Amino acid sequence: MSTYQAPLRDMLFALDLAGLGEIERLPGFEDAGFEIAEAVLGEAATFAGEVLDPLNAFGDKTPPRWEDGAVHMPPGFKEAYRRFAQAGWIGLPMPAEYGGQGLPQVLSAAVLEMWNAASMSFALGPLLNQGAIEALLLCGTPEQKRLFIPNLVSGKWMGTMVLTESQAGSDLAQVRTKAVPEGDHYRISGQKIFITYGEHDIAENIVHLILARTPTAPAGVKGISLFIVPKFLVNPDGTLGARNDVSCASIEHKLGIHASPTCVLNYGEKTGAIGYLIGEENTGLASMFIMMNLARFSVGIQGLAISDRAYQHALAYARERVQSAPLGSKRDAAPVTIIHHPDVRRMLMSMKARLEAMRALGLSVAAAMDHAHAEADETVRANAEAYVELMTPIVKGWFTEESIDITSTALQVHGGMGFIEETGAAQYYRDCRITPIYEGTTAIQANDLIGRKLLRDMGKAVAATIARMKTVVAELEASEHADLRVIQANLTPAIAALGDTSIWIGTTAVADLPTAFACSVPYLKLWGIVAGGWQMARAALLAERHLAESDAEAAFYHAKIATARFYAEHFLPQAGGIAASIVKGSHSVLALTDEQFALDRERFIPV
Amino acid sequence: MSTYQAPLRDMLFALDLAGLGEIERLPGFEDAGFEIAEAVLGEAATFAGEVLDPLNAFGDKTPPRWEDGAVHMPPGFKEAYRRFAQAGWIGLPMPAEYGGQGLPQVLSAAVLEMWNAASMSFALGPLLNQGAIEALLLCGTPEQKRLFIPNLVSGKWMGTMVLTESQAGSDLAQVRTKAVPEGDHYRISGQKIFITYGEHDIAENIVHLILARTPTAPAGVKGISLFIVPKFLVNPDGTLGARNDVSCASIEHKLGIHASPTCVLNYGEKTGAIGYLIGEENTGLASMFIMMNLARFSVGIQGLAISDRAYQHALAYARERVQSAPLGSKRDAAPVTIIHHPDVRRMLMSMKARLEAMRALGLSVAAAMDHAHAEADETVRANAEAYVELMTPIVKGWFTEESIDITSTALQVHGGMGFIEETGAAQYYRDCRITPIYEGTTAIQANDLIGRKLLRDMGKAVAATIARMKTVVAELEASEHADLRVIQANLTPAIAALGDTSIWIGTTAVADLPTAFACSVPYLKLWGIVAGGWQMARAALLAERHLAESDAEAAFYHAKIATARFYAEHFLPQAGGIAASIVKGSHSVLALTDEQFALDRERFIPV
Repeated sequence: MSTYQAPLRDMLFALDLAGLGEIERLPGFEDAGFEIAEAVLGEAATFAGEVLDPLNAFGDKTPPRWEDGAVHMPPGFKEAYRRFAQAGWIGLPMPAEYGGQGLPQVLSAAVLEMWNAASMSFALGPLLNQGAIEALLLCGTPEQKRLFIPNLVSGKWMGTMVLTESQAGSDLAQVRTKAVPEGDHYRISGQKIFITYGEHDIAENIVHLILARTPTAPAGVKGISLFIVPKFLVNPDGTLGARNDVSCASIEHKLGIHASPTCVLNYGEKTGAIGYLIGEENTGLASMFIMMNLARFSVGIQGLAISDRAYQHALAYARERVQSAPLGSKRDAAPVTIIHHPDVRRMLMSMKARLEAMRALGLSVAAAMDHAHAEADETVRANAEAYVELMTPIVKGWFTEESIDITSTALQVHGGMGFIEETGAAQYYRDCRITPIYEGTTAIQANDLIGRKLLRDMGKAVAATIARMKTVVAELEASEHADLRVIQANLTPAIAALGDTSIWIGTTAVADLPTAFACSVPYLKLWGIVAGGWQMARAALLAERHLAESDAEAAFYHAKIATARFYAEHFLPQAGGIAASIVKGSHSVLALTDEQFALDRERFIPV
Repeated sequence: MSTYQAPLRDMLFALDLAGLGEIERLPGFEDAGFEIAEAVLGEAATFAGEVLDPLNAFGDKTPPRWEDGAVHMPPGFKEAYRRFAQAGWIGLPMPAEYGGQGLPQVLSAAVLEMWNAASMSFALGPLLNQGAIEALLLCGTPEQKRLFIPNLVSGKWMGTMVLTESQAGSDLAQVRTKAVPEGDHYRISGQKIFITYGEHDIAENIVHLILARTPTAPAGVKGISLFIVPKFLVNPDGTLGARNDVSCASIEHKLGIHASPTCVLNYGEKTGAIGYLIGEENTGLASMFIMMNLARFSVGIQGLAISDRAYQHALAYARERVQSAPLGSKRDAAPVTIIHHPDVRRMLMSMKARLEAMRALGLSVAAAMDHAHAEADETVRANAEAYVELMTPIVKGWFTEESIDITSTALQVHGGMGFIEETGAAQYYRDCRITPIYEGTTAIQANDLIGRKLLRDMGKAVAATIARMKTVVAELEASEHADLRVIQANLTPAIAALGDTSIWIGTTAVADLPTAFACSVPYLKLWGIVAGGWQMARAALLAERHLAESDAEAAFYHAKIATARFYAEHFLPQAGGIAASIVKGSHSVLALTDEQFALDRERFIPV
């Protein structure tokens, strides 16, 4: 079992590529240059490796215990959260007035990758806590902010997101949990499932942000409100009061992230849980989306993180495991480390190339969040925000879907040892599998991409991003570097395929929604592949500039270009096939009737 | 948790497609027509559903226990194996003189799918037992056959394949287990790992077929011999003698197939285990490949089986789970079963189409085994054998790699419930993950495909199969059915891509082996996709003929054509991209040095 080593050098490169230099010039981020980045990332890497990493395999084997409504976290988690909070990691992107450090999202995202790579089960707590803080910051009353945010930032308390109900699943229109007004508060009652860190013993209070419906609320998503339901009521002076009427009925036995408690929570079994409205009644969906969009981006980063961890594990094994003589060597030639075998090399390259593409793309989105937040010009802010909104479902959907293949590939590098739990590779394959599901399945991301991002603004944000891609193609065309020309030759048709497919979906949606959405997930994948190729092309151009300027780190920058070329030659050629299957094959998705699916299992040939 | 229902109707269709009617005309298979097939498959489906299915989830949660060298199987396994044997299932494809039924492989393969879909952990025992019987049938002395085969066919004893050693892994050249001659037997000593069903309590004796090296053996694979090492020695009258010197040191804790005991076996810790040579000294590799090739084909069928089981689970859930109103419906429209949502439909189609392609391809290979065995004409036999040899790595490699994606897709259909172990979908995702590893990883299959199948006969078997594909294209061209023309339009370029890539690899191998093998796995995948498309095209043609003849089962045959079209529009377009990545991108696989892989994790930017 290897200790987690953060890909610091690559992260610093990706920060450069994402324009940390420009963010440093924005008001409020004056301190956030490369010097600070290097210091913060170095500290985070040490913390991730020394404090969080030891929880990972241990927590997998020693899951939380449920006992009479209490959830006992595995030994070490409480102490790690205390140290995490004390070191200021919760507050990294939070405003200074609430105890935060006010650093840009682009740095926060890099650090987030480390927490999740070191121990995804641990990192889920802070991830949801961050979403809860964000929702309170943007939608809470001054009093709510004063009472709750500092303690959530200090790590004394922890926030949750409480959305799902058994009969509703992803369909929030079906939320039934009741909220009955009573003076300055509401009485909440109902059952919620799949609540991550819904109950535990690592913080003294848990602040549930819960979706519920008031008696007069309209049906559907327009009748949902968001409430604060603290596990322990909070007195006006911030001290803890009585236990609220919320209890944990059970925790789930899951495929992965064993150490993260997934709770069934019952609200209001006795007198009704006391809850405080956030914002106005019936505006809960909008507030929820504040948490949700950040959480979706963060889950995308989880997909990257777990993939990187799995890759790292596989790379270490490939450099150490001796097996088989090189291909075509003489009889009785000595066996070599398996990194020297072409297919192992291919697997490593295929992981490395996608990791770098995802990291670059993820940080480009985080950087856009900073621009959307801090730019002086309103149009610049709006354009940055449109890019964030367009890319959020792609980061969430594509990174997490790729994580299944990358963790699987990493397991495969280990051969038979990969299937033995003790090796550790299997845990990543299990853990990652939740990421394309929670915070909205890939289909929900893909529907969001088509419905809210492509169609709603008539393709404006899509066209703007494709235009940015084309300027990179022009830069590649101007280069005399052979590898960059190869990248250009692969990127150009891939961008065209993305553009044509977007137009086809837009046109089809006018008359035939089911067909327009039938290949929403392949369309999202197409976006991921092409956007990743765009970022890799940018990386190659940046590496070329560094090489032109100096000989320092030539091997690193040459590797960047070679990896970008690998990506261009092995992933971008998929774009044409995916585009064809969408444009020509969407009808065949819907060709069978419900009943026809059952015929294969008819017992006999009817006479 | 749903009970396994065998896809009987589809299997009968696939048997028709694989030419059961022609096999029935071969000597020895006169009884094996559709009537028998329907009876055998019906019986097997009942047995799989009633006897094996209950072991599946139970065995996952209740793995075998190791205790002082003994392995206690989960309750129910011993009784199920007794019933399995008594019903004659072990002997299905075995010669009558040893207690078998002598039925063709094409039927045996269909039945094999059922055992593995119902309980893969159970089915692994019989799978390896069959390989051991096959090796004894082809390489054993008359006395060895008399002593061992009837008891292996009756289920009284069980056979194993004992190959792997820790330092050697897939590299059998490094096998170190010793075999020292002593009179009419040998004394075997050494440690073997990853031995499936290497120790258990469900048969009274275990017959290990083990690879070892005699003192005078040459180094490498040319110095390996195959031995019979029974757990209990066997007296000349067939009764059991003393316990042999073989012991189980431990069993593994694995990601999946929990109920299948994976053993570390120590041979000869005391006096040396008594072993009997099979065939000549130093010819063990050839005998081993008899077991191995059959086992590789069978593991491919496992990949199909577990995929079908997962699909079935997902389909049942999709037809039952109500969630969300249909796309584009009015506000407050009622939620519907999720099979009505386009992306769920897409996931189901993508599974169904590949399952049918794999089943058709697998049975075409099994049918070729029967032709290779029983045809009168030597050339016809040789051609059939060449097809079996070419397709074995493709069945093993492609089916099992697809099983990862199919079981993952099936899990995804369940949303959050898929991640909860109780739902059952996660077990398939875990269980299937061993199939691209054991009996030779996908890379080993792909190297076999290029080295022994493409290059060794200068592309003859490849060209012959591609020629058969082209005759199907000609039939499609002659059809006036719009769907068949679409299939043709997609199949034609895919076959061309396969042909061109094969020629490129053949040419490149002359001067540059590492580059020729750099994309061996994508080449295997390309083969799988195109061969699957070929079989689906044949299925569509057969369905069209049935529809022209009669109205019976029109919905079933229309579904066949629609599913074939879906396959053609969604999988065949991938061929061009894969071919391009192989032909143009193989160099970039090997572009980095070993050291360059490590640079991403350098801690700081050097000044």
